[in-house]
Amino acid sequence: MSEHDGGLVLADQPLRVRPCSVAAALDIVGERWALLVIREIGYGVHRFARIAGYTGASRDMLADRLRKLESAGIVERRQYSEHPPRFEYHLTEAGQELFPVLLALREWGDKWAVDQPAIQVRHDCGHLVKSVLTCQHCGAPVTRDTVTPERPATFRATGGPDRSPSGRALS
Amino acid sequence: MSEHDGGLVLADQPLRVRPCSVAAALDIVGERWALLVIREIGYGVHRFARIAGYTGASRDMLADRLRKLESAGIVERRQYSEHPPRFEYHLTEAGQELFPVLLALREWGDKWAVDQPAIQVRHDCGHLVKSVLTCQHCGAPVTRDTVTPERPATFRATGGPDRSPSGRALS
Repeated sequence: MSEHDGGLVLADQPLRVRPCSVAAALDIVGERWALLVIREIGYGVHRFARIAGYTGASRDMLADRLRKLESAGIVERRQYSEHPPRFEYHLTEAGQELFPVLLALREWGDKWAVDQPAIQVRHDCGHLVKSVLTCQHCGAPVTRDTVTPERPATFRATGGPDRSPSGRALS
Repeated sequence: MSEHDGGLVLADQPLRVRPCSVAAALDIVGERWALLVIREIGYGVHRFARIAGYTGASRDMLADRLRKLESAGIVERRQYSEHPPRFEYHLTEAGQELFPVLLALREWGDKWAVDQPAIQVRHDCGHLVKSVLTCQHCGAPVTRDTVTPERPATFRATGGPDRSPSGRALS
């Protein structure tokens, strides 16, 4: 992306908070515990006590995050016992589609944040995963140097409020 | 990944906090403002007042996040004026390599968190970016269903503390 101060995409933009899908995504999942809970459910751990144990979240913290993730349409509860009432937590389609975010965080963390990865991820081809972002259209890698941000011609600066996957407006 | 409770990778793991590169990465960048600052610098916005304006961070919040990101080796300061002393903020290599994390968050946010993206990203091939995670080894897509987490044979459960890109241990 452009390196001069101001940035390409900003040529016509006043200096005010940038409406942005990254920010909107972070409003929903931009919190350490939320992403760790999603990681854990993605590993196939669906029960409250185990999610708490593997993430290190306190019961109150976890209950709060699960409620928010459910209300945002990322996680859904499924009852597996009636007496007493007990629930498992599963990822919705929106939750499952956070896989690239978690994989990108994992690969960055493997390289820059730990001495030695504690878990590695193997691809079906038999190799450990080292992922490359490629363009769905041309198949070439998508890197910082091969993309340009721009404002959509149709963007309405006064567009409606951001919405969560459940369709509810976010606070 | 496996969907039964417990999860494949956990068969031999006691119920305790999982050492994990995702968690380690989130210890460094798992905070809304940190990632928005990195997004902004990635857009080519290098000066304090403009980063504050486009992210909406208060000056205190921004100064705090920039200090932490600098100390973690994600951002570096470069002096551009001596009298008065003024600095620009640039991404280090570790910071630049967060591009896939931000792109994955953007694509997820475009689909699940906003009605209409305010910024779109165009690939050099001329198409708007829709990225696919592919395996560097076999070239096939890397998806939730084509990977398996496992514990490295060499992992030492009592390994040293996580480190930040600057080599400093994280609190």
